[in-house]
Amino acid sequence: MSTAGLISQDTIVALATSSGSNGAIAVIRVSGSEAIRITNAIFKGKDLTQQPSHTIHFGTIREGEDIIDEVLVSLFIGPNSYTKENSVEISTHNSTYIIERVVSLLIKKGARAAKAGEFTLRAFLNGGLDLSQAEAVADLIASNSAASHQIAMQQMRGGFSNQLKKLREDLVHFASLIELELDFSEEDVEFANRDQLKNLIQQIYTVINKLVSSFEQGNVLKNGVPIVIAGKPNVGKSTLLNALLNEERAIVSEIAGTTRDTIEDEINIHGVTFRFIDTAGIRETTDIIEAKGVERTREKMKQARLIVYLFDPTQDQITNVWIQIEEVKSLGIPFITIINKADLLSEPQKVEFNILNPLFISAKEQQGIEKLKDELLNQVNLANINTDDVMVTNIRHVEALQKTQQSLEKVLYGIENPVTSDFLAMDIRQALHHLGEITGAVTTDDLLDNIFSKFCIGK
Amino acid sequence: MSTAGLISQDTIVALATSSGSNGAIAVIRVSGSEAIRITNAIFKGKDLTQQPSHTIHFGTIREGEDIIDEVLVSLFIGPNSYTKENSVEISTHNSTYIIERVVSLLIKKGARAAKAGEFTLRAFLNGGLDLSQAEAVADLIASNSAASHQIAMQQMRGGFSNQLKKLREDLVHFASLIELELDFSEEDVEFANRDQLKNLIQQIYTVINKLVSSFEQGNVLKNGVPIVIAGKPNVGKSTLLNALLNEERAIVSEIAGTTRDTIEDEINIHGVTFRFIDTAGIRETTDIIEAKGVERTREKMKQARLIVYLFDPTQDQITNVWIQIEEVKSLGIPFITIINKADLLSEPQKVEFNILNPLFISAKEQQGIEKLKDELLNQVNLANINTDDVMVTNIRHVEALQKTQQSLEKVLYGIENPVTSDFLAMDIRQALHHLGEITGAVTTDDLLDNIFSKFCIGK
Repeated sequence: MSTAGLISQDTIVALATSSGSNGAIAVIRVSGSEAIRITNAIFKGKDLTQQPSHTIHFGTIREGEDIIDEVLVSLFIGPNSYTKENSVEISTHNSTYIIERVVSLLIKKGARAAKAGEFTLRAFLNGGLDLSQAEAVADLIASNSAASHQIAMQQMRGGFSNQLKKLREDLVHFASLIELELDFSEEDVEFANRDQLKNLIQQIYTVINKLVSSFEQGNVLKNGVPIVIAGKPNVGKSTLLNALLNEERAIVSEIAGTTRDTIEDEINIHGVTFRFIDTAGIRETTDIIEAKGVERTREKMKQARLIVYLFDPTQDQITNVWIQIEEVKSLGIPFITIINKADLLSEPQKVEFNILNPLFISAKEQQGIEKLKDELLNQVNLANINTDDVMVTNIRHVEALQKTQQSLEKVLYGIENPVTSDFLAMDIRQALHHLGEITGAVTTDDLLDNIFSKFCIGK
Repeated sequence: MSTAGLISQDTIVALATSSGSNGAIAVIRVSGSEAIRITNAIFKGKDLTQQPSHTIHFGTIREGEDIIDEVLVSLFIGPNSYTKENSVEISTHNSTYIIERVVSLLIKKGARAAKAGEFTLRAFLNGGLDLSQAEAVADLIASNSAASHQIAMQQMRGGFSNQLKKLREDLVHFASLIELELDFSEEDVEFANRDQLKNLIQQIYTVINKLVSSFEQGNVLKNGVPIVIAGKPNVGKSTLLNALLNEERAIVSEIAGTTRDTIEDEINIHGVTFRFIDTAGIRETTDIIEAKGVERTREKMKQARLIVYLFDPTQDQITNVWIQIEEVKSLGIPFITIINKADLLSEPQKVEFNILNPLFISAKEQQGIEKLKDELLNQVNLANINTDDVMVTNIRHVEALQKTQQSLEKVLYGIENPVTSDFLAMDIRQALHHLGEITGAVTTDDLLDNIFSKFCIGK
């Protein structure tokens, strides 16, 4: 099934708000050339086809004489709508029974059930959003931290796609000039100034390089920093995790009517999400320096971007601690050395352990947790990230950018070496193709299917 | 805490749509004299305070320079709104993060979080709805069958409260006349014609009696017909239940974006809900004619409005069946006699069992299920109920009506007997009081608290 094939003038309908029984109202979205006419056919109130755009009308939805609901209908006359088509939003009471009846009735009158992401697909196909903006809509809805929200918002509002569009236009200009040379190939003229082209290519390459480099940070901001709390059994790993999580839970604001899905094992520190990798097995049973568990532990720890390694000074000698630290160091992943149960240490003992430059905490007594949080932010170097910076968070985008880079490298090679214009033109076209994939200037049905099928229905 | 105390001009805010992550958009509702001003303070776009009612405006919600979301804002200028106050609906992307930020921001600018049912409470206090209509809003949202929906819709649109209001007005008229008599008590005049009064009282009594009688049916339509499938072990009770439920599940329409909460052990036949009372214990282990289980079984069966009693003819002799039927009969509850596994019977056997006037089915082979459904509807006598009839479904209403009846009976006694006008006036006032409780002409803080605290927030 091809999503892209849906560019027809079908009028589509779907519930746009979350299903569930804890809301007062629900919104049913209708879009397509016939959206207003179809809604009008089941609506008793004003004649909706005669009303201006962006107005709201009270009335009833009826099937014959049967009143299904009292509703508010919002009208959007294309192109002044999200989809750029005629659109209607019907605000009903939040009863599954009512929603089903209204949707059925709209379908009976000529609409059809929308597919996943179809409203946003139409917004893209009708020029309301470019492809990376459309993708950001889904990211925005999924965002659950200040950082992921800001990245999605920035992308939705144009973000790096504006930058790429500008560079792509410049490159298109050069591509045309070089293709013009092909028409005059026997005369050996150069319409495209090779130095200027080289400059442009290098400029584009630099921008793209920066975008590609931003991916790691962007991805971490979007999906959270993978982190492991490790250490020998009974050093207090679970207690520390709970100390971090509980504090977090306590500060989740209790705003009437909003319930946060319980996010297990994720904490949010100053807008940055830290996602704890499940090391349940390790936590309970494995001793890191014990040969048997080492490999599994190492595998888990390698997935982390940061390791919080915990010691119990009442259990471990400093030489033993030292050995463990060397072991962790060999993984090549940043780690924080934590001495837990510090409240049980004497001052001389603290001085002894200080040689490891650790953080002293007591997970049980909630001591040092704030310092640890600062250190977490510090270690991942995200505390002062300017999320205003353009940032790539989408694996599809980074792959297209990398392919663009490869093509640009060929173009540069072509400029420096005796390569004919037709090869140069081909490489530039290739670079343009990959750049275009990001913003949707170049699309395939498969690509669109792949992107929009991941959206939810009603979006 | 008194809900009624909330009649202040506070501006309130809440998420009005269901929370959950499967929606595209969410709607945040703001109501109160400052609703538009407060929203305008965080909105970048047109000046909302200068726009007409029932218009929609695109813009961004910002905290300083930080863009929280691109939104649509719908404006309702009081009294042309649900609450009759200035109201705003902000349609955001459905991200918990965004919803929390927008709600927080509105609170920061002077709104406060709405309490359960507070929007509807305001609609009532500001005269937009009477009390029984306000209660119907909650019923409408909870409705999950054609019948419960229609009853709630009818009540929300005025239903019997209009009828009661009219009768109450007539009665108020007589109360005034009789109270006038009190002023002239020494002159022994009668302003209120006793025959006309008696007529009116009898008329009101008849209407109320009809309403009280409608409660049983109304309640059953609203909450479902309680029904028990009974019979000895292994006669196929579970199989029958599944046959009924599965067929139901299969016909639940699959409309994109609407998910029905799984309703276990409820089926809907032509708009009437049948709710199966859990007889798990009985089903598995108890033999109805066995002394030990009889009492418990009888208790369960007594809760039913209808018993479906199942026999397995391959297991039971007809004389045995006869004894069980007598046993069920003694409960005084309508029952349907079912011979299951009828596909295993020979014709002569069928003729023999026919004397019991049973329904022959095979739960396993799905035979006779449609006939059984018709019989279920037939037995509860709801198939042809005209849900257009005014019907009382609320226990609070029926109690107030019964108290009104008692007062009316005293009034009638007073007219027929030598009772002084002051006692008559008191009884009439009492009747008026109870009638007024239904529509909210008479309310107490406790009553309002009790009603609206059951609403969800945002309603």
